[in-house]
Amino acid sequence: MSDYPESVLKIIRALKMLPEIGPKMAQRISFEILNWKKEDFEKFIKDIVDGYTKTKKCKICNNFSEKEICSICEDPTREKEKLCIVEDVQGIKSIERTKVFKGRYHVIDSVIKPLEGKGVDQIGIEKIIERIKKDKIKEIIIALNPRSEREITSIYIKDERKKVFPEIKITKLARGIPLGTEIEYADELTLKEAIEGRKEI
Amino acid sequence: MSDYPESVLKIIRALKMLPEIGPKMAQRISFEILNWKKEDFEKFIKDIVDGYTKTKKCKICNNFSEKEICSICEDPTREKEKLCIVEDVQGIKSIERTKVFKGRYHVIDSVIKPLEGKGVDQIGIEKIIERIKKDKIKEIIIALNPRSEREITSIYIKDERKKVFPEIKITKLARGIPLGTEIEYADELTLKEAIEGRKEI
Repeated sequence: MSDYPESVLKIIRALKMLPEIGPKMAQRISFEILNWKKEDFEKFIKDIVDGYTKTKKCKICNNFSEKEICSICEDPTREKEKLCIVEDVQGIKSIERTKVFKGRYHVIDSVIKPLEGKGVDQIGIEKIIERIKKDKIKEIIIALNPRSEREITSIYIKDERKKVFPEIKITKLARGIPLGTEIEYADELTLKEAIEGRKEI
Repeated sequence: MSDYPESVLKIIRALKMLPEIGPKMAQRISFEILNWKKEDFEKFIKDIVDGYTKTKKCKICNNFSEKEICSICEDPTREKEKLCIVEDVQGIKSIERTKVFKGRYHVIDSVIKPLEGKGVDQIGIEKIIERIKKDKIKEIIIALNPRSEREITSIYIKDERKKVFPEIKITKLARGIPLGTEIEYADELTLKEAIEGRKEI
């Protein structure tokens, strides 16, 4: 036996598609799956397929939702004129936990990653501009993770889009989140202070 | 938003079924999957389902195989009278890599785990006894991982099954594999020496 049968290699290859899972771990997980009872395996696959199929992206803000519009966007009690721009859905959850922010969110389509060929045109800026107009946004809070914050900020300025809406206050989270830490990992108190102490940029 | 939509929680719960994946990691992997393009997701699911469905356990030795009988069991050049008992399929691969052993294998059904209610009756000893008779086995090499070796050995002796076949030499891998190390992680040279220096027990 030079190697595992092709069917086993197929599962290992598939699991290596998942983030954070290296070859050794993919192999160990595969063997565990191959030893599962048929009903457990079927439940596993059904739950993943169901979850993937039923989860949509909110048409307004890109948040995960089972409906066209997410629960935050359809909540009439949220302040429409404050828009918090986050990098991903975890960012929404982290900020929601602080209970400080009562505005709405916008998940950008992609962070600027020049090395991966993702430029200014990929963050979905048009959708944000459209919301600014439609919802008469008065304040934009940029709550991107520190590593991407600088890039996006400079784009905001360089792009001179600010000139189009000079009346809008643009803030970013205050110092409080340790440099290099993702919002997801900041404790609630730090994040709360960062939101309250946000500064105009 | 108190939490993620049910569909997202469903994927997270499913991923937590996998070994070595904790709640935080299950969440991060879920988000990555939810951002996959439809064709990538479909390929992922298809490969896992295909792999699970096509992988059988060899009717003779429990090795993974796409056919009823695995490539080692159906290879006429392998010495039929030497049987190496391993804990899992990785054990076969590790020993095959040393190119020292030319006999055949038997993957036990389960290691004895009294705390999990897995007793002597779960290792599949009847199937091994049957092979001993049928293949006229002359030597059994016990190559279980060190942590389970002692238990199984004592069972072999206590169970007095040895009395049934007093003519069979039973060996275990020689010292060489560091205590507490799984066979899978032993380097090839150490494992090779452990096989060559096997001792009768």
